[in-house]
Parts: sequence; structure tokens; C-alpha cells
Amino acid sequence: MSVLVTGFEPFGGASTNPSSAAVSTMDGVHTVELPCTFGGSIPALRAAIDRYQPELVVCAGLAGGRAGLSVERVAINVDDARIPNNAGTQPVDEPVVPDGPAAYFSSLPIKACVAALRDAGIPAAVSQTAGTFVCNHVFYGLAHLIATEFPAVRGGFVHVPYAPEQVTDGSAPSMSVPDIARGLRIVVDTALSSTVDIAVSGGAEQ
Amino acid sequence: MSVLVTGFEPFGGASTNPSSAAVSTMDGVHTVELPCTFGGSIPALRAAIDRYQPELVVCAGLAGGRAGLSVERVAINVDDARIPNNAGTQPVDEPVVPDGPAAYFSSLPIKACVAALRDAGIPAAVSQTAGTFVCNHVFYGLAHLIATEFPAVRGGFVHVPYAPEQVTDGSAPSMSVPDIARGLRIVVDTALSSTVDIAVSGGAEQ
Amino acid sequence: MSVLVTGFEPFGGASTNPSSAAVSTMDGVHTVELPCTFGGSIPALRAAIDRYQPELVVCAGLAGGRAGLSVERVAINVDDARIPNNAGTQPVDEPVVPDGPAAYFSSLPIKACVAALRDAGIPAAVSQTAGTFVCNHVFYGLAHLIATEFPAVRGGFVHVPYAPEQVTDGSAPSMSVPDIARGLRIVVDTALSSTVDIAVSGGAEQ
Amino acid sequence: MSVLVTGFEPFGGASTNPSSAAVSTMDGVHTVELPCTFGGSIPALRAAIDRYQPELVVCAGLAGGRAGLSVERVAINVDDARIPNNAGTQPVDEPVVPDGPAAYFSSLPIKACVAALRDAGIPAAVSQTAGTFVCNHVFYGLAHLIATEFPAVRGGFVHVPYAPEQVTDGSAPSMSVPDIARGLRIVVDTALSSTVDIAVSGGAEQ
Repeated sequence: MSVLVTGFEPFGGASTNPSSAAVSTMDGVHTVELPCTFGGSIPALRAAIDRYQPELVVCAGLAGGRAGLSVERVAINVDDARIPNNAGTQPVDEPVVPDGPAAYFSSLPIKACVAALRDAGIPAAVSQTAGTFVCNHVFYGLAHLIATEFPAVRGGFVHVPYAPEQVTDGSAPSMSVPDIARGLRIVVDTALSSTVDIAVSGGAEQ
Repeated sequence: MSVLVTGFEPFGGASTNPSSAAVSTMDGVHTVELPCTFGGSIPALRAAIDRYQPELVVCAGLAGGRAGLSVERVAINVDDARIPNNAGTQPVDEPVVPDGPAAYFSSLPIKACVAALRDAGIPAAVSQTAGTFVCNHVFYGLAHLIATEFPAVRGGFVHVPYAPEQVTDGSAPSMSVPDIARGLRIVVDTALSSTVDIAVSGGAEQ
Repeated sequence: MSVLVTGFEPFGGASTNPSSAAVSTMDGVHTVELPCTFGGSIPALRAAIDRYQPELVVCAGLAGGRAGLSVERVAINVDDARIPNNAGTQPVDEPVVPDGPAAYFSSLPIKACVAALRDAGIPAAVSQTAGTFVCNHVFYGLAHLIATEFPAVRGGFVHVPYAPEQVTDGSAPSMSVPDIARGLRIVVDTALSSTVDIAVSGGAEQ
Repeated sequence: MSVLVTGFEPFGGASTNPSSAAVSTMDGVHTVELPCTFGGSIPALRAAIDRYQPELVVCAGLAGGRAGLSVERVAINVDDARIPNNAGTQPVDEPVVPDGPAAYFSSLPIKACVAALRDAGIPAAVSQTAGTFVCNHVFYGLAHLIATEFPAVRGGFVHVPYAPEQVTDGSAPSMSVPDIARGLRIVVDTALSSTVDIAVSGGAEQ
């Protein structure tokens, strides 16, 4: 049973990224830190999949401002960068994969993951958007790889809050890195044990 | 030149819906109030398209809590209701259209619309999610009708804030109904005059 | 019956201030635009009181980020500036009035004002803090003038939201300038007709 | 060297209160859980002061929705309850202490405390309002006891965020209980070592 969990290197001038800080502490799974670039992130993900042959892939990234873990529902086929990525690239309304479908849904049991996180006392919710930056780019790229080359793999994306030391002025929510790691472990364990999702609401009116 | 603009009836116990309150004041376009139900909204939209034969369709709905007009980028093929709709229906993770694609992108020039709104002093932004309730349902339904039956039509969805009188305790942002109507007019005019969108960022990191 | 209503000049690099934009449109009251400086604002307020001999004074200022009119409850005897004022001054933990009391409560009927605003469809709430910048400074200065020199005058402070054209990116709530002016008129009328406040909750747990 | 740190019992239907959950884990200080009632909280605080004869008193309470520790600047002489307290009492605009001054400032070095918290990676800020509920009531009561009966004591109030397990839906910020306890320890240590506050801005424009 091989599992791959990825985090991102810091971006936007930050010195750390709680996604990779948390992922790097996880035992029993293969972990990789992806570059925060449109050009490099999917090739690095693909190399890790080739190397570790996982049956489950969970990619994590920072969503500064959110108060809980966000289990993402859908990746869309667009790169639209409000700020340049770490390679200085700032695409506007370009497809992640030319001629790819408009979107892919997560193949994680997202509702079961959220339920398990909440049962463990970890703030969590389904999210209806992973944005249009490198996180969505990798999520879409992962789903496209699964759809076109690795049909036995399941995978998805989880956004994590700031670590407390990133927002010491109290201006945004945060979650301790150990709690983030504990949450990602719960996502992995839930995905491994649940191939069919539970039917509970996780929607939004808007 | 025929244009159709739709709003929604009130939902969730509210006595008014600023989307239809604004739409009903607009001149020179065909206006319809759609039922806020999963079962009835798309048939009502289709009937209006059949009747008015528009070349442009702009659907509007309420997004309580947002501070500006949200020009939606993408509709996803899922109904997931946190609250029952006005017919008492509460689907969980059902497709809007079985076997439809995962998502459709708006065929409005969304960046040009946002730029024109801001130039007119109206708070506005591109939004990466229209939710998973009746608004997204109608937006997806409109896009599917365009893709499968009405290829000459262009259309999209705009979420509007609360009207001030809905949030008199000051707990959420609002926009006056005349400003909402003025904004929807700008969206219509921009879409009529721009068939190719402008290339400016309207993305989100998350 | 003489009434004085004041607004502020723009500050922090903004080109307009909705408080003075709204105040300047009001009929039947004396209106003054105060400088946004710690040194100049109270002398300008005092000069206006000397000149117009009002029985009621309502000062208004911008509270960017709030969604409704904030009828302020209390002014505290401290200047603590996160940013420099328009004269480049940035006091830290200095008293507004040396040896003045720690705080003054508004002598407006704040609960009745909020109730009247809400009845008129204008978002409003009692606020428990006017901050520590020039707005609180003027509010404290007004209350101190009333307590020490003008015992027949009643007065208080109202914070107003951004105007829509100040936040066209939709990142913060706003209120149209005509609605702000209508609200300030309601505050004036309510204060003139109510010398005893109503007993309804307007508190906060924190 | 005797130090007293207090937390509150749960209120508003919650099953726990992170203030007392954190305080109860602190070593080397006297700790007390205060009742969340207007009638009982100050007598309980006074009894603890009589018993432990502290030179420093730090009271802590929950401020649900804040993202960091809030070191409170000022207590005001008003009880105004939006919800009933745990004894079913709901005062509106009554003084904490009849004929007491309008407000008291904290006698903690609030700026030094915030700086020390941030240095330790704990989100924190000065707050300009402790509300008008039992937290402000106790803070005012403490300051009044110091001013009138215990002049050798210094003391103040710190609001704490929700614990993560209170907001598992991710709808509000939270802080782990160990981090809250670590933060309160830093406040105690800073107050013991600093009798004069540092001169750095901690103000707000509104």
C-alpha cells in the first residue's frame, strides 16, 4: 500500500509553507515538496507518482485566510494568477491542459474526510473552489494524470490554514502545524478505508 | 437584439430577493423571475429562452455575504444543498445533468464586465465558484442549453449582495437595489459590445 | 434649534471621505469638515460650536470595513495611531486631554438612533469602540467640551462605511453616500426628539 | 510572588470554555474558574484575591471569532447583555459599579505583552473593547477593586479564541488550548518583568 502526500514550497514572499511543514512530519507515507511554479509543479508530481507508484495521492497547499482544512471538491482547467508564481510566471486565463475538460471532481471521499476530521476535533469543510493559482493547477494536473494515465490511482487536494507563526498580528485564522499533520493523516486513512463517499451535505448556496 | 435577464424569487425564508427586485426595474430587456427550485428553475429558463429568442442571457441570484457583484466564471455539474430549496428538495451530490461535463465556463466576457463595473464605481469581482445550490444549478443549466441546443446564445451568471434592508443589523455587506440594477445593465452592455474578453487577472490563490 | 454635523477630510491616502461627502449634502443643519489631525480637529470643532451655538452635535467619520452605520457608545482618553494622521503626527498612548477622565459615554440616545435607522432600512448597530485615532480623539474632545464648558449641548459620534466607489474590488462592505446622509439625518431627528434613550440591548459579548 | 489567573465557566450553551481549559493547566500560579454571571463573577474574583493576596491578576475569557489573543486596553462601566448570562440575567445599560468612573485602563503592560506573544509565534493584538458582557464586567470589577481597595495589585484582561473542537465546521478562527495556555504564561511573565510599558503602536483607526 503506497501513499503519496505532497506539500508546497513557500510562495509570495513567505519564509515557510505550513503544507510542506506538516507533510514533512508524516510517517508511513511518501512525501514530496512541490515547487510553487506553473511549469515545475506537475512534472515534479508526475515524477513522484512514477517513482512511488502510489494508489492514493493527497496534495496539500496553503489557503491563507481559511480557518479549517478545506477538502477540495473540484479542479478547473484555468490558470489565472493574481500574483506571479515562484518562477515569475503570471498566466491569465490559460488552460492547465489545452483541450482538457473544463473540470475534474476529486476522487477522494470528500464528505467522509470532512466528517472524520470534525469527529477528531479538527475544523474542516468541503470547499467548492481551489482557486486558479498553482494549487488548482496541481489538483487539475493530478486529476488529469489519473484520468489519462493512472486509472488505478485515487487522489485529491486539501487546502490548509496559515500556521500561527505566519499571522502573529492576529489578522487571520491559523492552525498549528501538528494539527494540520494530524488532519492530513486522517484524510489519508479515511480515503484508504472508504472507496464510496457518504451522502451528507457539504454544499454552499453561493 | 433580444436580451434576457433573470432574477430569483426569495428563498430561505427571506421576504425579498434583491436579484429579482433589481432585474424587474430594468428597461429594454426581457426579464423573468425564476423559481428557486431545482426542479422548476431550468424549465422556466428554457421557456423564457424559447419565448424571447435572446442572443444574450444574464442570470442573477443572491449571494448573501458578498460585498460586490460577483461575475461567475464556472458552473459545476453538482447539486449539493445545505438547506432545502423552495420545493422542499435537498439533493446531495447529484448531477445537474446526468452525464453532462463536470463544468462549463461562462460565455460572458467576465473580465471586461468586472472592469466596466469598477470603472462605474460599482464593487465587483470575478468569482471562482457559484456554489452548489439553485444558482449554480441554473448557471450550469443555461450553459448546457447553450452547448447543446442554442449555440448562438451567449450567457452567464452574476451573484449580487444583500439589499440594505435585508441586513439592517449591519452584520453583512449590502448594495442598494438601484446600484445592483445599474450593475446588471453594465454587464449586459459590456457583453453586447465585447465578444472577446480582455486579458487581465481575475484569479484567486485559493 | 441649531444642529451641527461634522465630517472629516480624506485621510490615509484616500481621495474622498464619505463622512464629509454625506454631511455636505444635508439641509437644515450647520455642517463643517474637520481636518483629520490630532492637533487641528478639536480646535476646529470648538470653533464651530462657538460659531453656531448648537444644542446638538453629531460628528461622523469613516470606519472602513464596517457594513453599517456605527453609533458609538464611548470615547476613551487615548491617542494611539497605527498610521500617521494628515499632519504626519503619530502619537502612541498619549491622552486626548491630560488628566481627563478615562472615558465619556455618548449623550445621544444611541439605542433609539439604531432602532430608527433599522426601521428605515439602513444597516446600523451600536459600537463599543471608536478606535484610538482621530475619530475617537474628536469624539472624546466633543464630550470633554460638553462636560466642562457646554453643559446644554448633547452630542456623539457615528462611524460610516466606505462609499462603494472606494472599494470597487469588492473587498470590503460599502454604503451609498445618499444612504449615509439619510442615516445621519435620522440620527439627528431621533436625538432631537428623544432625550431619554430606549432600553433595548445593543451590547457585545466581546 | 503570588499570581492569580482566572478563566470562565462555559456560557451560551457551550460545553467547554477554552479560557478555563487553558488556565487550569498552568503551573506556579493560583487559578480560579469564575462563574459566567453578572452577580457572581466579581464576588468570586474578590474572594480569590482575598485568599491568594496576588500582586498580579490576569483574567481570561472567550472571545469567539477572534483569531489571536486579545490583550484588552480598557474596561467600561456598562453591562449590556445581548444574551442572558448563566443565571438568566440580561441587564441593559446598567453600570457595573454605580457612580464608578466611565472606564479603567488595564494596568498590565499591554504593548509589551503583545510584543512578547508575537515573538513567541502566538497571534496577538491589543483590543480596544472587551465588550459589554461578563468579561468586561469582571475586567471593570477587577480594575475597580485595584483602584479602591488593592492599590498594590496590577491586573488586566485577555480574551482568547475558540478552541478548535468548538468550531469544527471551520466557520471561525481557533487556537489550540496548549497555545492559549502558553500565551497566558507569557502575559504573566511579561507583566512580572515589565512595570513600564513599551511605546509601540497598538491602536485602531476605528
